[in-house]
Amino acid sequence: MTSFAAVDVIRTKRDRGRIPDEQIDWVIDAYTRGTVAEEQMAALAMAILLNGMQPGELARWTAAMIASGTTLDLSSVTRPTADKHSTGGVGDKITLPLAPLVAACGAAVPQLSGRGLGHTGGTLDKLEAIPGWRSRITNDEFLRQLRDVGAVVCAAGDELAPADRKLYALRDVTATVESIPLIASSIMSKKIAEGASSLVLDVKVGSGAFMKDVPAARALAQTMVALGTAHGVRTFALLTDMHTPLGRTAGNALEVAEAVEVLAGGGPPDVVNLTLALAREMLAGAGITDVDPADALRDGQAMDVWRRMISAQGGDPDASLPVAREKHVVAAPASGTLARLDAYGVGVAAWRLGAGRARKEDPVSAAAGVVMLAKPGDPVRAGQPLLELHSDDPARFGWALEALEGGYDIGDPPAPRPLVIERVA
Amino acid sequence: MTSFAAVDVIRTKRDRGRIPDEQIDWVIDAYTRGTVAEEQMAALAMAILLNGMQPGELARWTAAMIASGTTLDLSSVTRPTADKHSTGGVGDKITLPLAPLVAACGAAVPQLSGRGLGHTGGTLDKLEAIPGWRSRITNDEFLRQLRDVGAVVCAAGDELAPADRKLYALRDVTATVESIPLIASSIMSKKIAEGASSLVLDVKVGSGAFMKDVPAARALAQTMVALGTAHGVRTFALLTDMHTPLGRTAGNALEVAEAVEVLAGGGPPDVVNLTLALAREMLAGAGITDVDPADALRDGQAMDVWRRMISAQGGDPDASLPVAREKHVVAAPASGTLARLDAYGVGVAAWRLGAGRARKEDPVSAAAGVVMLAKPGDPVRAGQPLLELHSDDPARFGWALEALEGGYDIGDPPAPRPLVIERVA
Repeated sequence: MTSFAAVDVIRTKRDRGRIPDEQIDWVIDAYTRGTVAEEQMAALAMAILLNGMQPGELARWTAAMIASGTTLDLSSVTRPTADKHSTGGVGDKITLPLAPLVAACGAAVPQLSGRGLGHTGGTLDKLEAIPGWRSRITNDEFLRQLRDVGAVVCAAGDELAPADRKLYALRDVTATVESIPLIASSIMSKKIAEGASSLVLDVKVGSGAFMKDVPAARALAQTMVALGTAHGVRTFALLTDMHTPLGRTAGNALEVAEAVEVLAGGGPPDVVNLTLALAREMLAGAGITDVDPADALRDGQAMDVWRRMISAQGGDPDASLPVAREKHVVAAPASGTLARLDAYGVGVAAWRLGAGRARKEDPVSAAAGVVMLAKPGDPVRAGQPLLELHSDDPARFGWALEALEGGYDIGDPPAPRPLVIERVA
Repeated sequence: MTSFAAVDVIRTKRDRGRIPDEQIDWVIDAYTRGTVAEEQMAALAMAILLNGMQPGELARWTAAMIASGTTLDLSSVTRPTADKHSTGGVGDKITLPLAPLVAACGAAVPQLSGRGLGHTGGTLDKLEAIPGWRSRITNDEFLRQLRDVGAVVCAAGDELAPADRKLYALRDVTATVESIPLIASSIMSKKIAEGASSLVLDVKVGSGAFMKDVPAARALAQTMVALGTAHGVRTFALLTDMHTPLGRTAGNALEVAEAVEVLAGGGPPDVVNLTLALAREMLAGAGITDVDPADALRDGQAMDVWRRMISAQGGDPDASLPVAREKHVVAAPASGTLARLDAYGVGVAAWRLGAGRARKEDPVSAAAGVVMLAKPGDPVRAGQPLLELHSDDPARFGWALEALEGGYDIGDPPAPRPLVIERVA
């Protein structure tokens, strides 16, 4: 590969130019190998955040991130493959019922997931609440489970898009996270390297999401759909509401229990409806149009796949889940309708109770979290329990309550808010 | 000092905000101590380059850079002190005659100087062409020489504005050099820490300078004058032309010889005129208005101070200067008037001949450089020697000649260009 000067690449972007393809290839490769220094990539990332990237430039950047590592070969899987990614929200346990449900309907779901950071939870943290379940499996185990069970949720190996892993850690400490090209290339490089032939993106919008408004979320969704399509992955996106948490729980074991309710044919309507909406998109992406996923929830087929999926990775689907030693109830201060329950406040409260981590290295509590006994639109009476805080450490309750201050209103019924706001294809 | 999160400071500037004073103090101090990482300062520097700084914000930033180290105490020097700084040009040997000239007129000149990097030469590199002369002296030697001789040109110690030394090296590799707030605070933090009570800035404009046009140079000059004034230093600036090299030489020993000619009452008119213009500004800044520096050049007083200044730092003012082993003559390709001789081309040629360095650690050749046998406006005949390239290494001639391609025109007489373009006070 031709060698360039990092300072010239940075200067081009600083001066609002388009970085030439061969320089993109070089800078990503050299950064992965350590030849381009962290401070040089930090300056480049800030220049990208402030000056943007052209579509073709971003496509090449994403391709270079993919090329920094290996790509999974799913050709031994005979079923059509369908993947899903959520940009992260509060109470977003959708992957848990969704992956087995889509597998039950005939697709294969390879879900390489992440851990939570900040106020949004991580799918791996949730599944690790199940005794025995392990997130790390070998490539062979992964492919075998995908063929035999049809669904795998596990940790991504170090060999997938290593440039992204380095860059993601760097962006976190240099205030260069909030950039649509950098977010889109980070997500899509990993997802494309995972090798699925179709992908559905759940782009969250609202106080509990990364994207606070619809135009920003739409721009991110369009950018990611274009990147996936350019790489031959059938990609669709749904913009979905994240002003209030999904379902009635935020926390690891609490969300697993709620997911199991959904797989048993029950569960909160928003979780059921979003699971079905995403399942339909994934099945359409996989070319499966003659199956209604609602049937597979109702007749227990999805639950069967869930049990096999958990067992295959060492988990006991019948084991009791961890329960917090201490609970604290927040009562409704007045009678009326719960007009608002802010996703961000609940997310931060769950995090402070121990469900999330401040740094990558921190452990999380499986039992900690928030149970929402009322959701927006529900009538409440003064003194009625509104929220239940769960933690092993009662010293955390005060800190969590601070996060909830101003996070809910009792008043007139709220205007109905659609859960699925928009589809981007 | 209160502690902050670097990522919050970066985010403020990224989002076009003003960094609060206490955060500026903290981030400069923490960066100097290594608590704020290089990649974090790189992202902040890029955000400053792209989003700018408000005047009060920049003043505080500069104050924090000064506070990162010690400030020289010149109170034992009874004469008024006057300093000068040039933003760097080709053939800019002005400090060499200027410092002894101003000292001969009654001011004390403490000149902490730098080395060349890229196509512009450095004053210390030039003086080191004099056998025996050393740039490093102790603080006591510095003060004694300033009192006894009246002029010192030496290397800045590590204790002056250490934040700037770190940041300067970082900016060099992250394409964050070309920022008026960062340039101004870098220069002014060092100059203010040097403790002189007045300062004249020679802001170069043109192809061989950092600032290519008058508006940019004026903005830099105004920014620096405001910073100096805010710190109680009487500060003035001259915008001076750098489209063509100063004088007839570019190179270390070659420029020393030309400076000695000026001190002997001769020398090229542009060098003499700029030396006198800057001397008058420095003397005015020092409150000395009854002396004409032209007299001190004419009657040998400036030469006397030069000889004592060189001797005080171990140099032999009578020693022969190094001479290059090889010369290459560039002949005029046509007859007419030399219409243009580009400063940047000559600067790069001198650098490639060995006069400059590509990296801080590189040695420089004392003998290498370019002698200009004609300057713009001079009549030339086809075949007449135009430029003389000097190097110990004949293999460098071809590389230097490439830098000169398109760097001069023979044609109609050029429009006269004022040497001093504008004064900023």
